[in-house]
Amino acid sequence: MTTPFRGIVPPVLTPLTTEGEVDVASLERLVDHLVTEGVHGLFVLGSTGEVAYLTDAQRDVVVRTVVRTAAGRVPVMGGAIDLTTARVVEQAKALVAGGVDAVVATAPVYALNDLDEIERHLRAVAAAVDVPLFAYDIPVRVRTKLPADLLVRLGTEGVLAGVKDSSGDDVGFRRLVAANAAAGSPLALFTGHEVVVDGMLLLGADGVVPGLANVDAGGYVRLWDLAQAGKWDDARVEQDRIAALFEIVFQARGRSGDAAGVGAFKVAAQRQGLIATETLAFPVEPLADDVAARVEEITRAAGLLRG
Amino acid sequence: MTTPFRGIVPPVLTPLTTEGEVDVASLERLVDHLVTEGVHGLFVLGSTGEVAYLTDAQRDVVVRTVVRTAAGRVPVMGGAIDLTTARVVEQAKALVAGGVDAVVATAPVYALNDLDEIERHLRAVAAAVDVPLFAYDIPVRVRTKLPADLLVRLGTEGVLAGVKDSSGDDVGFRRLVAANAAAGSPLALFTGHEVVVDGMLLLGADGVVPGLANVDAGGYVRLWDLAQAGKWDDARVEQDRIAALFEIVFQARGRSGDAAGVGAFKVAAQRQGLIATETLAFPVEPLADDVAARVEEITRAAGLLRG
Amino acid sequence: MTTPFRGIVPPVLTPLTTEGEVDVASLERLVDHLVTEGVHGLFVLGSTGEVAYLTDAQRDVVVRTVVRTAAGRVPVMGGAIDLTTARVVEQAKALVAGGVDAVVATAPVYALNDLDEIERHLRAVAAAVDVPLFAYDIPVRVRTKLPADLLVRLGTEGVLAGVKDSSGDDVGFRRLVAANAAAGSPLALFTGHEVVVDGMLLLGADGVVPGLANVDAGGYVRLWDLAQAGKWDDARVEQDRIAALFEIVFQARGRSGDAAGVGAFKVAAQRQGLIATETLAFPVEPLADDVAARVEEITRAAGLLRG
Amino acid sequence: MTTPFRGIVPPVLTPLTTEGEVDVASLERLVDHLVTEGVHGLFVLGSTGEVAYLTDAQRDVVVRTVVRTAAGRVPVMGGAIDLTTARVVEQAKALVAGGVDAVVATAPVYALNDLDEIERHLRAVAAAVDVPLFAYDIPVRVRTKLPADLLVRLGTEGVLAGVKDSSGDDVGFRRLVAANAAAGSPLALFTGHEVVVDGMLLLGADGVVPGLANVDAGGYVRLWDLAQAGKWDDARVEQDRIAALFEIVFQARGRSGDAAGVGAFKVAAQRQGLIATETLAFPVEPLADDVAARVEEITRAAGLLRG
Repeated sequence: MTTPFRGIVPPVLTPLTTEGEVDVASLERLVDHLVTEGVHGLFVLGSTGEVAYLTDAQRDVVVRTVVRTAAGRVPVMGGAIDLTTARVVEQAKALVAGGVDAVVATAPVYALNDLDEIERHLRAVAAAVDVPLFAYDIPVRVRTKLPADLLVRLGTEGVLAGVKDSSGDDVGFRRLVAANAAAGSPLALFTGHEVVVDGMLLLGADGVVPGLANVDAGGYVRLWDLAQAGKWDDARVEQDRIAALFEIVFQARGRSGDAAGVGAFKVAAQRQGLIATETLAFPVEPLADDVAARVEEITRAAGLLRG
Repeated sequence: MTTPFRGIVPPVLTPLTTEGEVDVASLERLVDHLVTEGVHGLFVLGSTGEVAYLTDAQRDVVVRTVVRTAAGRVPVMGGAIDLTTARVVEQAKALVAGGVDAVVATAPVYALNDLDEIERHLRAVAAAVDVPLFAYDIPVRVRTKLPADLLVRLGTEGVLAGVKDSSGDDVGFRRLVAANAAAGSPLALFTGHEVVVDGMLLLGADGVVPGLANVDAGGYVRLWDLAQAGKWDDARVEQDRIAALFEIVFQARGRSGDAAGVGAFKVAAQRQGLIATETLAFPVEPLADDVAARVEEITRAAGLLRG
Repeated sequence: MTTPFRGIVPPVLTPLTTEGEVDVASLERLVDHLVTEGVHGLFVLGSTGEVAYLTDAQRDVVVRTVVRTAAGRVPVMGGAIDLTTARVVEQAKALVAGGVDAVVATAPVYALNDLDEIERHLRAVAAAVDVPLFAYDIPVRVRTKLPADLLVRLGTEGVLAGVKDSSGDDVGFRRLVAANAAAGSPLALFTGHEVVVDGMLLLGADGVVPGLANVDAGGYVRLWDLAQAGKWDDARVEQDRIAALFEIVFQARGRSGDAAGVGAFKVAAQRQGLIATETLAFPVEPLADDVAARVEEITRAAGLLRG
Repeated sequence: MTTPFRGIVPPVLTPLTTEGEVDVASLERLVDHLVTEGVHGLFVLGSTGEVAYLTDAQRDVVVRTVVRTAAGRVPVMGGAIDLTTARVVEQAKALVAGGVDAVVATAPVYALNDLDEIERHLRAVAAAVDVPLFAYDIPVRVRTKLPADLLVRLGTEGVLAGVKDSSGDDVGFRRLVAANAAAGSPLALFTGHEVVVDGMLLLGADGVVPGLANVDAGGYVRLWDLAQAGKWDDARVEQDRIAALFEIVFQARGRSGDAAGVGAFKVAAQRQGLIATETLAFPVEPLADDVAARVEEITRAAGLLRG
């Protein structure tokens, strides 16, 4: 395969001003930092990018900023996140107009669809744009788990170019890897799990989309390089270090999933000077001071803060 | 209470042409029929109205058509269905611009929010429009069950004017009715359950939003009138007849929830001459011929088809 | 139908000594009280009876005590609660040896079975005993919802004599009532929902199994009598009073379902002098003092405590 | 650590006669085969052993047969599977009387317990026996996911000796491995996932409990040895071969989880001559002939059948 879509592809945070608007300067700085650290691609407007909270106008600013800043150094994938087909197609077209190199789409949301309907949905989105389409398997947000046989079939037919797996089902991911290999590897297979990347690369993942790479892009790039070199025990050591850092997302006990996860990434990135504020998109409030302090402490312990 | 929001308020189907565009003539005919049958309000752009599948442009056509056709004879409520606050606010403003008398909003979708965030979300939507806001409690689609104490508190503060309960949790609904009564009944409480309306009215529901009323508006109006008159045994007989008709939604075994439910309503309404086609919004295919034939047969057995 | 199984059938609490053994004297007192209050039957070893926590020896003490104390004044139903068929059959035989008039069984627990397997399970339990079998539909504990068509079919064949519905799915319950009526009413249909009994009786329930009847048997008997007399508005008033009392189960916020529910019933029954202690089965600790005080206050407000 | 509990520990199938009784001769043959193949321990009366379906008498036969046949060559762990504490303690004592070297217990079943109650439950089971206790984390059967901090704390206090993780949550497993390591590794950590064993061993699992090892014990022993030697790429190749074999459990589409999984293991083991029949415990019927033929074909393709 000669797909440009492989390796470490962070789902880019959307930095916000304290008023809740897109902080373009911070986004430029973050993107430039990630590319400089050696990531292999960027995924914009994913769940980590708070896509659900952004208006179409804000999404457009985000996409154009990232594409402009990446400046062709790495490919940019964009999430076309909306309720169902007609609306997702509009999002996908806007992404392509904004310059993305690939579109990422989930199963429909809010609607109650079966697999035949989901298949037609993915086919329609693919047909509507002239860039590769990745399926985004994220049942915790959209309820549906995309089955491996459907994905590989759509890969074989050229409808899908890949899959971003955030399902938490690693047994399913291995079965997907095996089925894809048996079909000639039509799909690029990405895992979204921050802390089992060593094992997922060992079993054949083509890429990783770790939200935590906003905080430690260098670590993930090293992990990738060690895995490519077959140095699995070293990869495990690097992964263990990263896994300790990942504890930042478990500090905000009792807060929502989006607050705890994206909130922690933003605090750590802000402390690193990558983004100006730790503001989260309304209606999510930033982490409490004591929680943010623990996030900072863990980030420091991982060697990611100066001073 | 002098709220105009009570009684039978059908979630209006969105008739489509075979090309998938809004069939304005059919929508006008359907709305006029419902009003003539005596319904007390209309709910446009709800789940039964396939709101998730419609673009903003299509939604606008639907709202303006219904408001124009209703022509003030009954109030029109509109669903502001999108991912989370900023996007929902845009939808709500479009609805108000289109002339609705109330906005209906769910908890956020796709986002992973806690109750504090959901409360801020509802407050922000209410603040953005100058018509009453109803909360739409539909966990099967948005995952979150809205708790009674939150709803009553927002009612007491004037944030919410009412609740449309499609949660399937009738114990919770009774607790909500009791808590609302204890607080001076700030909320108008609507149930979305087609087949337990007699019991829900007995225990104090203020209104009903039955998708099946697209097919049998007259039956629901009679049921309402019997309940208002305290003729509960007669109400139960009417409800039993309606419940037998509701079996139309269980005919498409193995199909998705949207196909089976909205599909059955559209077949029955088409056979009654209320709408021109039984087309469902892409990617949902219409019911198979044998299923549609059973839907027609049940509708006929309920006395709702001539000839 | 001449089934003796109808009306108000409390799931009898299992009073415990502070050492966690069955408090036979309290159980005798409670049973005698319930029968004197006019209940129409007793359900022993249900979830409210903490069946899951009792050894076989303790279960035997409970059954024999209740049967002896009921002394034929009302029928006694017993829960045969264990993992799957062979073990449930052993429980059912022990219940029959203990003198119950009917056995109640759930779908298998722990095992991962489909509907064909569940059907064979129910058939085997029915075949193993010579008293009527009721199916106990309680998906919150056993994961599986028993479908109406399966239940009615087994009723028609004489495998099942009835259903105790604790599924929380009142739409499903009405469909079950309708399907049962259409089949000639082979099943006696009981609801387990404490606070929608008026509506469930209106729509055709044959009986009620309310855990709260341990605390207010008289109220449920009055509600039943009003419903039988067709005095639905009066029934609703009685139900509203009972629903306010039911708030006792929501006082122990943050505690487990068993602690909050059975714990509240035991506190209220202990304050009424019906049972000696509010001890819950290990590993469940009794309600905290402040929670118990609120339970007592609500019980008093409902007119159920002297002094 | 000098725990004897590590390595490949198959959850031993319970061979049955066509009448549904324990087939002692087959069980002896199977156990002897597994030990000869080099497994490091045996887990008897687990889910794969159809524990939920067996009476106490049958369980006793199974335990005594396995202990007698293992004859001290490898340690034997036994599942104490019942509803909640008092009953589980009885099961655990019976296992110890039968000679097991460790007891494995889940969170309570059927009961609705919180984490404090589950902790007391595990403490009570541990206190009741004088062999090590493993927690069995299997939310698909018992609904509750056991949290890492609870497990490590109980390990540190000496209540738990280890964990068998069948939760499907590999991110959670890595966090458990990390937390356990940080606490001085009090727990032996076993994964129950057949197809990600290479990755789980890489990240630090101490052992594996793969149902598929009843069919390919040799493969798992080789996989273990390669991992111990740090030959991760070779381990991955072996795991890929095993993963292809694991497809046998996905052949019985539409059947229950227990039928499809245990059914496939029994067919393959029967074809290998390890057990006499492929009978499953009532009410589960064996696999259909065409499904069994596919299972056989896959097993043959994996090089596990002669002729």
